[in-house]
Amino acid sequence: MPSFAQRLQNAIEQKQSPILMGLDPRVDMIPDDCFVRGKETPEAIAEGFYTFADRLMTALIDLVPAVKPQIAFYEALGIPGLQAYARILKRAKELGILCIADIKRGDIGSTSEAYAHAHLGSENSEGPFEADAVTINPWLGADSLEPYFKRCREREKGVYLLLHTSNPGSVDLQEQELKSGEKLYQKLGNLINTWQNEAPSDSDYSSIGAVVGATWPEQLTELQSRCPKTPFLVPGYGSQGGKGEDVAPLYKNGLHPHLINASRSLTYAYTKRGGNLEEAALEAAHEMKQDILRT
Amino acid sequence: MPSFAQRLQNAIEQKQSPILMGLDPRVDMIPDDCFVRGKETPEAIAEGFYTFADRLMTALIDLVPAVKPQIAFYEALGIPGLQAYARILKRAKELGILCIADIKRGDIGSTSEAYAHAHLGSENSEGPFEADAVTINPWLGADSLEPYFKRCREREKGVYLLLHTSNPGSVDLQEQELKSGEKLYQKLGNLINTWQNEAPSDSDYSSIGAVVGATWPEQLTELQSRCPKTPFLVPGYGSQGGKGEDVAPLYKNGLHPHLINASRSLTYAYTKRGGNLEEAALEAAHEMKQDILRT
Repeated sequence: MPSFAQRLQNAIEQKQSPILMGLDPRVDMIPDDCFVRGKETPEAIAEGFYTFADRLMTALIDLVPAVKPQIAFYEALGIPGLQAYARILKRAKELGILCIADIKRGDIGSTSEAYAHAHLGSENSEGPFEADAVTINPWLGADSLEPYFKRCREREKGVYLLLHTSNPGSVDLQEQELKSGEKLYQKLGNLINTWQNEAPSDSDYSSIGAVVGATWPEQLTELQSRCPKTPFLVPGYGSQGGKGEDVAPLYKNGLHPHLINASRSLTYAYTKRGGNLEEAALEAAHEMKQDILRT
Repeated sequence: MPSFAQRLQNAIEQKQSPILMGLDPRVDMIPDDCFVRGKETPEAIAEGFYTFADRLMTALIDLVPAVKPQIAFYEALGIPGLQAYARILKRAKELGILCIADIKRGDIGSTSEAYAHAHLGSENSEGPFEADAVTINPWLGADSLEPYFKRCREREKGVYLLLHTSNPGSVDLQEQELKSGEKLYQKLGNLINTWQNEAPSDSDYSSIGAVVGATWPEQLTELQSRCPKTPFLVPGYGSQGGKGEDVAPLYKNGLHPHLINASRSLTYAYTKRGGNLEEAALEAAHEMKQDILRT
């Protein structure tokens, strides 16, 4: 099987779209026809979450090379929610849509290995929540990341490290100025360049990527130069204020394997545009694609 | 109900012990009589994980004010593992042992709120995996932490931020030297002091604590002065190389609400000392208490 980076490149080229659809269901936001209102047991809500995700993936299959379910929304429902989460991962696989699990885990030693198995599987057994790639928190440093890098090398998986997040609090640690004159996120960018040697890829891009918020366009442009082999996962477009012009530079030389994430602005488009869930999301996705690729 | 900090102080004083027992089950390490060898389905292993935790908590109830289940080991088993995890939390509550969920989550906005609900509950409903306190990753900054601080204020919960972890990779980001001359973890210590104002406590200590590895004794001593209201959760004692003399200074003026975590050195003591699970763990816990408190 090709590396995650190559599979991502192929999927983006095939669909001529770099849209990463977030699957972040909230009970007060998903349409009434996804489940029976008034019977809001965790089981019924979880079934609704699955229906919501399945309908969106099916409808947007030609425009969405990858989806990003946010595990927190399923975890908050407890066991039924996590059962729905696992079913959504399986459904994405059946549909041939890449699945980037937004888990933001980060731990050390055998604990890190346990998380990596859970979400990316192991040599001899599939993981219970196995996805194609995961988001990971780098705060604990290199040894905490190695179990994920191993799965990039040996299982053609991908990992996205949180490099500069989209929220205001990213200044608290990530933007700190170091004695060397660099900002901390720049230092982390350098580390990512080094770590990419741990998982050589068959593509121009590494399977070790990074998350950088569209809300920080200057940093995004600078990091694209600093980390030339890094596939970026860019949240913050749409509802959080990131604009097409902020992310368009990523594609100025072609459809590189960077992904622009949109969750609410696609999956809840029906609440603003009218129409049904699928029609509104499809319309929003077409507009987003044009806005990003400036076509 | 008293604040988490006060409840922790009470429990440590009552048991005259600051031992935090980690519940990190691994199928190759738990005793044969916890489950039927040869029938290692996820369900059977999960049942074994519960039995393992229940037997240890019951046996060590007089020496262990709090337990710390590491969710990754349960998550790696999938749904049956997480069902066992939820049962262990309930069992700890029944036994009156404080439960610090080692989840190391960290995310933003409504996602952070979803995790906080899952693990610390909300005003109108219990969380599916509700514990007394959680470990959280601070990399995303203040706004990512607010849902947890809110639950310290409003639900008498606790939170431990990863300040200086026990592993070698903690140097990659946490030990970076800033332009100001401080190390990054020191800057984070200052931030924690400020954040503690967000959740006033009825105790001399805050319910916003910090994780600092016993493997970094100089940093631990310095942070104790820098962050005088902070309850510390100290991993790395025992199997990771931290010694009694490294953590003893925390208690030189009395039984302050700091916790020393030991997992393998207690729960797998039977593999080295012989005897059954309970006897070996109890013996190891007595020795650990003497080693830490220098009694």
